[in-house]
Amino acid sequence: MKKIILLYVLLIGAFLVYAVQHYQTGANEEDPFHSERLRGELGENYVMVTFLSGIEYWKSCLKGFEDAAETLNVSIEYRGATRYDTREQITVLEQIIAKKPAGIAISAIDPASLAGTIDKAVDAGIPVVLFDSDAPGSRAYSFLGTDNYEAGAAAARKMGQLVGGKGKVAVITLYSQQNHEERTRGFQETIDRAYPDMQVVAVEDDKGDAMVAKDLTRSLLEKEPDLAGVFVTEAVGGAGAAEAAKELGRTEQLHVVAFDTNKDTLDRIKEGNISASIAQGTWNMGYWSLQYLFHLHHDLTIPSPAASGVVSPVPVEVDTGISIVTPENVDDYYAK
Amino acid sequence: MKKIILLYVLLIGAFLVYAVQHYQTGANEEDPFHSERLRGELGENYVMVTFLSGIEYWKSCLKGFEDAAETLNVSIEYRGATRYDTREQITVLEQIIAKKPAGIAISAIDPASLAGTIDKAVDAGIPVVLFDSDAPGSRAYSFLGTDNYEAGAAAARKMGQLVGGKGKVAVITLYSQQNHEERTRGFQETIDRAYPDMQVVAVEDDKGDAMVAKDLTRSLLEKEPDLAGVFVTEAVGGAGAAEAAKELGRTEQLHVVAFDTNKDTLDRIKEGNISASIAQGTWNMGYWSLQYLFHLHHDLTIPSPAASGVVSPVPVEVDTGISIVTPENVDDYYAK
Repeated sequence: MKKIILLYVLLIGAFLVYAVQHYQTGANEEDPFHSERLRGELGENYVMVTFLSGIEYWKSCLKGFEDAAETLNVSIEYRGATRYDTREQITVLEQIIAKKPAGIAISAIDPASLAGTIDKAVDAGIPVVLFDSDAPGSRAYSFLGTDNYEAGAAAARKMGQLVGGKGKVAVITLYSQQNHEERTRGFQETIDRAYPDMQVVAVEDDKGDAMVAKDLTRSLLEKEPDLAGVFVTEAVGGAGAAEAAKELGRTEQLHVVAFDTNKDTLDRIKEGNISASIAQGTWNMGYWSLQYLFHLHHDLTIPSPAASGVVSPVPVEVDTGISIVTPENVDDYYAK
Repeated sequence: MKKIILLYVLLIGAFLVYAVQHYQTGANEEDPFHSERLRGELGENYVMVTFLSGIEYWKSCLKGFEDAAETLNVSIEYRGATRYDTREQITVLEQIIAKKPAGIAISAIDPASLAGTIDKAVDAGIPVVLFDSDAPGSRAYSFLGTDNYEAGAAAARKMGQLVGGKGKVAVITLYSQQNHEERTRGFQETIDRAYPDMQVVAVEDDKGDAMVAKDLTRSLLEKEPDLAGVFVTEAVGGAGAAEAAKELGRTEQLHVVAFDTNKDTLDRIKEGNISASIAQGTWNMGYWSLQYLFHLHHDLTIPSPAASGVVSPVPVEVDTGISIVTPENVDDYYAK
């Protein structure tokens, strides 16, 4: 008798478990857009690929990728060339393709060399999107990155506000790198157009070296004692420029607008040594890259990625925007 | 005895139901990116706003908006000015703001007039994104639409392929409307640059009227008997151009590349009277608009939409791409 009762209990229990699960997941089984279908399957793995893979800059891209992965219930992997080495990035990408992941988001070390390997992935049925650095010749489905001209223009507007719309300013940049040229041009043209009482008196090259940026700023302040601001278009020079102003006791007079959110830059914004920095939409790059890859892998778009001919199943070019880091919001930008 | 056993069964069953539900939904309660948190709440309502709200063009935008709503478990509403009337669209938008929806996706009837009302919504804490037609002066978070220059360039490449890279072609467009000017320029410049044996012999204005497009094509064929192709940049003229070729028995000779996916255009592609059409990424506009609004409403982005100063919580400008409709894939483009 007791055994039969136990059996009853187990059977009824099992039925209830089944009924609840069925109720929760089965309601819209034919509809691909029911949210239960926006969940990945066991072993569904997406890979983010970078170069100089250890630098701070990628942390927030990866955080976006991770946040999207949790949302969609899939797993991810972070890979990359450890050095600034095209050959190494191609090799890493080839190893990844061999494992047939569900999708790949890659930042291309240079615009031309990666296209062939990216196309190999697409031919093998693996969706690929590019983020941060594009490879325009490839058949990747999308590019998500910063509009560098607009970023420079935003820096000019911030600088204009900081210096009260008048005075001499300078730019420290990397010569002959396209994204930095665009930032410089966006800055310069916005100053010329919108701030008649401001002049860009110098555009210098710090070669991506904080010490060079420091020396350059020191000489600029000697040549132009009333210099009111410096816009540094690359990630490490802002701290150098700010350090020069500090050593000369000119922090109050010289407004430094930096780029990106390295810890050193954020610390100096906190202490008032750097006035502002231009943060790129790195979290957006990672988050929406994975969303696109997921939708491509599961064929959830209209038109379908499998349609014949020229089709754009996901947006093809995405300006992820910029944010301006200031003493008021700097705490939000430390890596978590 | 029997009653006690029944009680046991019920209690154990209830516990199992509770345990299963807890297991399925409670695992990551603090984490906003767990997928259970990407589900809307009861009464969470998003509104799509257009103008000329009855035309075919918006159907696919709305389908994308609906598909995203199902994914996210929220409700939506479709509103708009029925006529091409700025005042009417502003009134509709004001009525919507008064109801405090969770977010608004709007296609602006003209770039300037809507900005004030859009900003009013943003000030009231209602996220707004723009799709298809931008209002650049406003504080909307994003614009999702077609890169018209690129669309024209894609039409040129398709035309080049259709006519075998040589011969005379013409453009029928709308004069002095910016998006149509850009399509025409993208077409013309791509032909000039990439197809030395092709010439654009005329650029005409059909005023958005299929009959005018028909008459224009007829005269073009009289003036240039060896005309090999016509690219029509607006939605209704393609059918007119194709009808002229048909009446003159010149369908085999004259390749018409149309724009958008009106039923008449699709029918003619099916029967071989129009060679191809440029479809805009309308589903993408609707789908990703709602995704952005949802992420803004639930504060799921980094940086937060509530952060102080200039921030881009979602991508600021999104080129939703184009697809080329041909006899091979035309069936996918009929409204479902």
